[in-house]
Amino acid sequence: MKHYEDIHCKEHDDSALKVNEGVVQPPIVNPYFQRRKRHTLSTDDYIKGIREGNITILAQAITLVESLLPEHYAQAQEIIERCLPYSGNSVRIGITGVPGAGKSTFIEAVGEIVASLGHKLSVLAIDPSSERSGGSILGDKTRMEQLVHNPSVFIRPSPSAGSLGGVARKTRESIILCEAAGFDVIFIETVGVGQSETAVHSMVDLFLLIQIAGAGDELQGIKRGIMEMADMIAINKCDSGNQQRAELAKRHFLNALNLFPMPDSGWRPRVYTCSATEGNGLSDIWNGIEDFLKFTKQNGYYQRNRHRQAKYWMYETINEALRENFYRNPQVEAHLKENEELVLSDKKSSFIAARDLLNDYFDSLKK
Amino acid sequence: MKHYEDIHCKEHDDSALKVNEGVVQPPIVNPYFQRRKRHTLSTDDYIKGIREGNITILAQAITLVESLLPEHYAQAQEIIERCLPYSGNSVRIGITGVPGAGKSTFIEAVGEIVASLGHKLSVLAIDPSSERSGGSILGDKTRMEQLVHNPSVFIRPSPSAGSLGGVARKTRESIILCEAAGFDVIFIETVGVGQSETAVHSMVDLFLLIQIAGAGDELQGIKRGIMEMADMIAINKCDSGNQQRAELAKRHFLNALNLFPMPDSGWRPRVYTCSATEGNGLSDIWNGIEDFLKFTKQNGYYQRNRHRQAKYWMYETINEALRENFYRNPQVEAHLKENEELVLSDKKSSFIAARDLLNDYFDSLKK
Repeated sequence: MKHYEDIHCKEHDDSALKVNEGVVQPPIVNPYFQRRKRHTLSTDDYIKGIREGNITILAQAITLVESLLPEHYAQAQEIIERCLPYSGNSVRIGITGVPGAGKSTFIEAVGEIVASLGHKLSVLAIDPSSERSGGSILGDKTRMEQLVHNPSVFIRPSPSAGSLGGVARKTRESIILCEAAGFDVIFIETVGVGQSETAVHSMVDLFLLIQIAGAGDELQGIKRGIMEMADMIAINKCDSGNQQRAELAKRHFLNALNLFPMPDSGWRPRVYTCSATEGNGLSDIWNGIEDFLKFTKQNGYYQRNRHRQAKYWMYETINEALRENFYRNPQVEAHLKENEELVLSDKKSSFIAARDLLNDYFDSLKK
Repeated sequence: MKHYEDIHCKEHDDSALKVNEGVVQPPIVNPYFQRRKRHTLSTDDYIKGIREGNITILAQAITLVESLLPEHYAQAQEIIERCLPYSGNSVRIGITGVPGAGKSTFIEAVGEIVASLGHKLSVLAIDPSSERSGGSILGDKTRMEQLVHNPSVFIRPSPSAGSLGGVARKTRESIILCEAAGFDVIFIETVGVGQSETAVHSMVDLFLLIQIAGAGDELQGIKRGIMEMADMIAINKCDSGNQQRAELAKRHFLNALNLFPMPDSGWRPRVYTCSATEGNGLSDIWNGIEDFLKFTKQNGYYQRNRHRQAKYWMYETINEALRENFYRNPQVEAHLKENEELVLSDKKSSFIAARDLLNDYFDSLKK
């Protein structure tokens, strides 16, 4: 009987010092795999895709709009401009509530109803807090497991970078793209803790506040200002066995709302109870939304409000563009950090540093 | 006996139809009165007056800074720049509280103490709400009857026009002028309801929140964010006979403050009780303020905070200047209203209107 080593080895070196030759390892990365180069779409491709309601292209267009890269800016603006004639035909609904109020569950449940009525629904979000607190809204899409698979629903998380003003403007631009893609109901979700409500309020037709029938203080840290903005309050988590508390909460809110003067819309805000998990009361809320829209369209508030918002956004767009133009200016970029450091080390006052940078900037524009 | 008419009239026309000649009426306005033409001060005059601590000239300089007239802008900026080397030597204290907390009375009472210690005190205000609600802080100077007559105190109401950003910047510039005029303690008052606290917080060394020992909800609608900013809370209106409630309120606030993480300053916020009308507890508060300043100067926070604020103000000044330059541009002024109306009548989208105005603006800068 021959040893294994006798066959394979030229010399008989059957010792503990012998090192067998190894086998060549396959490469870790498949050498035949070629990363499919991402096809850069032309503006025409984008417009065509959006108008056909192609959700993949719509998502890519929104990514372009959200991009901070200068090379994307011009194309993004062109896409928005060409979508504008097809926009404005949706109902825009702002939804807010403190973390834990059950916004995602609520949107999932109401979203199904809206889709079943033949609407195309788009869910956007504004969450300027995400960068700091790490909290996310719509960040975890799996929280809307059902809705995300519905073919007539498009869900888009909040743009993650930029100031509140920037994020809000991008969401406002995304609305235009969604409308051009044929979505006729748009939910804009936000967290009821920051200043993002004002931003959302400036772009929606109806503002819905979600509260919970909690114990004790029913106002749950929601600021008076947010209560005043609400056209409708939905008290969520009114699950079976909790009705009494729900009714109490409802009366609480009605009392609180009665203290406010009648809103411009002429619509006295309504309070609904519902349970997003059990599905109770959700159709009533959607009917209420339709009542509101009918009412405000009849008394002219709907149109007046949209005009006011358009004016607001003209100014917002200008202010944002002015800042962008300044901070992306090569002269400014070259000297900004340096001036900031001089200010931080007390070598230059903030006003002089600002003046120097502004002079550089305006000089460079003259060339 | 002769009739009066017989003497004065050439003809005897003593009838009911006779109209006596009237006497020439004296002019309503005294013709000898000459309105003293307001002397236009040169920048040198302003600087000299400010450096000498001349309150009249200081007030005129602040009016110049607050002016929205373009012809005042350059001189105002020059004055600020020339005052800068003399600025920064004061203690800047922000004071906030809901309307009715007794801010004016508190400032009047503490102001007297500060002045009696040999300090020169300047009281400024930020109140962006005044234009809308008509409410005023420091508007009615008679509310500080005593303090206003104190020669080492300078009281200045809130600039009444402009956005919060603009008003805040002007107050920040007024601080510089006051410091150059030798004021070494500066109070900046604001109403604890809006977003003005953040603006005030960005320009002060210490932030003092005034609350009342009221019944029920001790937080009195003060937002969590404002509580978090406070380095010190003074519970006002703890008049005699009210001590028990005051102590209860104090414990309430201490508990609430303990829920917050330790502030950057390393200083655990203190809670004081006082009665501005009776004068109780006010010296303790001033001592507490001095403790805070000593503490933060030692651990370096004081300087670090001022640097951070200087950086913030560099950016604020830039952003404000960009807006000002745009909206005061003749090209923009000529077309702004027209574009706004097109947007309001649905004839132009807000984005296109913004783009057109921006194009006009940047074209005009090239010339």
